[in-house]
Amino acid sequence: MSDDQQGASMNRAGMNGAESLVRSLLASGVDTCFSNPGTSEMHFVAALDHVPGMRSVLTLFEGVATGACDGYYRMAGKPACSLLHLGPGLANGLANLHNAKKAGSGVVNIVGEHASTHIELDAPLMSDIKGIAGPVSHWVHSSQQAADVGVDAARAVQAAMSPPGQIATLILPSDTAWNEGGVVHGPLEPAAPAGFDAQALERAVAALSGPDSLLLLGGGALSAGNLEIAGRIAAGTGCALLSEWSNARLERGAGRVAIGRVPYPIDQALEVLEPFRRIVLIGARAPIGFFAYPGKPAILTRAGAEIIELADQAGDPGLALRALCQGAGAEGQVANVAQRQTGAIVSGPVTPDTIAAVLAQGIPENAVVVDESITTGRQFFPATAGAPPHTWLNNCGGSIGYGLPVAIGAAIACPDRKVLALVGDGSAMYTVQSIWTMARENLDITMLIFANRSYQILRGELRNVGVQNPGPRAIDMLSLDRPALDWVAMARSMGAEACRVDDSGDLTQALATGLSSQGPYLIEVML
Amino acid sequence: MSDDQQGASMNRAGMNGAESLVRSLLASGVDTCFSNPGTSEMHFVAALDHVPGMRSVLTLFEGVATGACDGYYRMAGKPACSLLHLGPGLANGLANLHNAKKAGSGVVNIVGEHASTHIELDAPLMSDIKGIAGPVSHWVHSSQQAADVGVDAARAVQAAMSPPGQIATLILPSDTAWNEGGVVHGPLEPAAPAGFDAQALERAVAALSGPDSLLLLGGGALSAGNLEIAGRIAAGTGCALLSEWSNARLERGAGRVAIGRVPYPIDQALEVLEPFRRIVLIGARAPIGFFAYPGKPAILTRAGAEIIELADQAGDPGLALRALCQGAGAEGQVANVAQRQTGAIVSGPVTPDTIAAVLAQGIPENAVVVDESITTGRQFFPATAGAPPHTWLNNCGGSIGYGLPVAIGAAIACPDRKVLALVGDGSAMYTVQSIWTMARENLDITMLIFANRSYQILRGELRNVGVQNPGPRAIDMLSLDRPALDWVAMARSMGAEACRVDDSGDLTQALATGLSSQGPYLIEVML
Repeated sequence: MSDDQQGASMNRAGMNGAESLVRSLLASGVDTCFSNPGTSEMHFVAALDHVPGMRSVLTLFEGVATGACDGYYRMAGKPACSLLHLGPGLANGLANLHNAKKAGSGVVNIVGEHASTHIELDAPLMSDIKGIAGPVSHWVHSSQQAADVGVDAARAVQAAMSPPGQIATLILPSDTAWNEGGVVHGPLEPAAPAGFDAQALERAVAALSGPDSLLLLGGGALSAGNLEIAGRIAAGTGCALLSEWSNARLERGAGRVAIGRVPYPIDQALEVLEPFRRIVLIGARAPIGFFAYPGKPAILTRAGAEIIELADQAGDPGLALRALCQGAGAEGQVANVAQRQTGAIVSGPVTPDTIAAVLAQGIPENAVVVDESITTGRQFFPATAGAPPHTWLNNCGGSIGYGLPVAIGAAIACPDRKVLALVGDGSAMYTVQSIWTMARENLDITMLIFANRSYQILRGELRNVGVQNPGPRAIDMLSLDRPALDWVAMARSMGAEACRVDDSGDLTQALATGLSSQGPYLIEVML
Repeated sequence: MSDDQQGASMNRAGMNGAESLVRSLLASGVDTCFSNPGTSEMHFVAALDHVPGMRSVLTLFEGVATGACDGYYRMAGKPACSLLHLGPGLANGLANLHNAKKAGSGVVNIVGEHASTHIELDAPLMSDIKGIAGPVSHWVHSSQQAADVGVDAARAVQAAMSPPGQIATLILPSDTAWNEGGVVHGPLEPAAPAGFDAQALERAVAALSGPDSLLLLGGGALSAGNLEIAGRIAAGTGCALLSEWSNARLERGAGRVAIGRVPYPIDQALEVLEPFRRIVLIGARAPIGFFAYPGKPAILTRAGAEIIELADQAGDPGLALRALCQGAGAEGQVANVAQRQTGAIVSGPVTPDTIAAVLAQGIPENAVVVDESITTGRQFFPATAGAPPHTWLNNCGGSIGYGLPVAIGAAIACPDRKVLALVGDGSAMYTVQSIWTMARENLDITMLIFANRSYQILRGELRNVGVQNPGPRAIDMLSLDRPALDWVAMARSMGAEACRVDDSGDLTQALATGLSSQGPYLIEVML
């Protein structure tokens, strides 16, 4: 492959468009494909077969594939590609592309289309693929002929790698795949991150002083190195540090700068943000409510607060933090870091609090924690601040069903790390097909499924939006207990081992079993 | 409710938009809702609670809800509504809306949106809902205020009921739900079906004569009454009768006019259609290939064939058939109908042919058969022509994962009929969450899941598109046997009873067990 990677482009006798796609993706560094192909993608499947170097991971539902691309990007720092079947296949992957887009994850979608001669016939599977792709994509393009596929693939990767990470959707009519004339194209330089405004820096330096000032971080500002700089700024200026509620990737644990998150519940968020008169944003957006609630503000910062954006999601957070640190004269400061916590053995029935305590003891060093624990997990994050160093991933788009697929992508990106997926039962059902891919690829993922048998968050939201005394039919529409889901049987039906616990001691043991075994392990946590 | 149904509109003191929605839907005859709500839909959930008359069916994934709307329309002849959470919730339902659109099924999607004041804040769940809805919808509208919700609901139902049945998507910002000022609106008249051209009738009458002429039927032409007229036309003119490969609803069985389908495999389709020099279309489209294949034609009729469209999908097939019958002087003819077949007891290992034989014996009178059997089921349709009278539903949009959800909708529309879902294992996994809703609603659905542990159709398609000697990695990407899915455990994990068979005698017994029991029953058929 080294020749492909160096030359801008090369034409091989007898190469079809599909082969030029795979070779061009490889040349641009994309070597992992999460797939759910159909007839229009068969030549790509064949090309994946005979071109070495691309790892193809089969999924049984497209939302698993696109969510895996999201998790892969967060942990590998480069895009994977999806291989999807026409408009409906893309549509099935759309919700997790929405989440990936909001997380700033770069994804290259390869979507097969009917042969160009077939499009006008309006066959059953014909649909407006560009129209479907548009709302979740930064970049959409349909190749015109086999000779264009290689360069279009390079452009798609370039778009996906542009800051902070973008959704690129490349539509390939099947004749562009099967026709000869494919040309391999080398990598194209992605856009550079935006710089920052000198005036904004000056204002930010002036703003950060004392406990009524806040440095609010998001996106790439949450790497261990950047957090360490933020910690020095906080030590030097006395400002508070917070991150957004949803973070694509946050490094934390003992020895790292601990950072709280702006809470999800609106009343708590308002309370936490109330003290701050001056807020500097790096990689974060000004805090707003997840939803609007009647009679409550949507903007969560105090009236009149000064908000200074030093770097947005597409900016360079490290550059901004270093400049801010220097401007604040805080380079010589020592950041306050989290201390390793060891607690007592947890016992008694499982509750959200005891799960949090078990996790604080049980998260292994270097683990990747994928958090879709919703209501059950409100205490998990603060409780685990002193666990061994680990990575924490949130859902940035709010569309549930992100956790299990993202865990797949993270596990494939980081084969030497343990992945811990913390997922509510309602959320896990959306993309439950993930378990099969975990088993097929023997991925080291331990899943905790929180079986409260309810869309518990919605019971609270019913009150929050002002519904008084919801009746039994409303409550029933938010209940998953009729029938109860059996997660142990579910996991085994797809080839994964599993157990059920309702005691905290058993949970400790089950977590250790899952983390020490090879391959996926599901723990149904009865609440 | 009778007052609401009579008046064009009425305003009740203290009625919010959500209540006006539910009352207006009921006034227009929409009394079934397949839901998967979120925060932005909580007022609708509350309204469903306290307004009597709307049956709300909870699903654990939106593709189940939209597919159920499709099946409901086909069997009830009127739309149900979905209740979906914002753009990503709609996106999860998109593939089955694509299928519903292609089937001519009317669906009313109710999609919650952020409060209008919240939209500009670009919250995590913010997306372009109109953009997502557009590619699968005939009608998209976003309500502006609570007072508009009632009339907008009536318009949505009107659009959904316009021939042949359309996809209407109504987007409701949450403040239009919670604000007071809701106005109930009565039903609005849907568009009438298109008539037909007198000249086309004349040509059609002249065309149908002898075995080189074909009457090709689709859509509403496949009711028992319309097929009986078509049978008289065939008896009087000597023309052949065929339906499209994919039919939204076809009435068949002993005592009804039997009709073949244009085959899916392209070579067979070309062979079947080769004799016909003159083709009259009623409710059907001129035959084209499902996909394009290199070196094969996409138009399946012989070169120079005369094709006369008498009624398209939005026309009135009964009107066209009666006129054609009269024009052909065939009113006094006797249609040839299928005879009841009884066969020998089937034994030996399960194969596609023995399954077909078991079905020929086992389909009960008045059953609804939902066919997503893909490769396993190629012989099911011809083999069951002489079974007791029953209804047969196909996937008209080609996006797999339609079968189990459509079975839910059919079962809810027809509580007194048995539903038989014939589904490939690969297809069933797409919307496997359906099983839970079947159990929850105790629906009389017997599922046969064909466990060939492969995307078998794609192995054939790999050859059809010209891939020579696919290697092991390509074959592996189409294989579901690593690990094997355990469908019995899968069904039980969601509260349904199940069994596994690999012997034809056991299949006969299992089918009888499933059909005689109340509630869902899954049979894993090992191939």
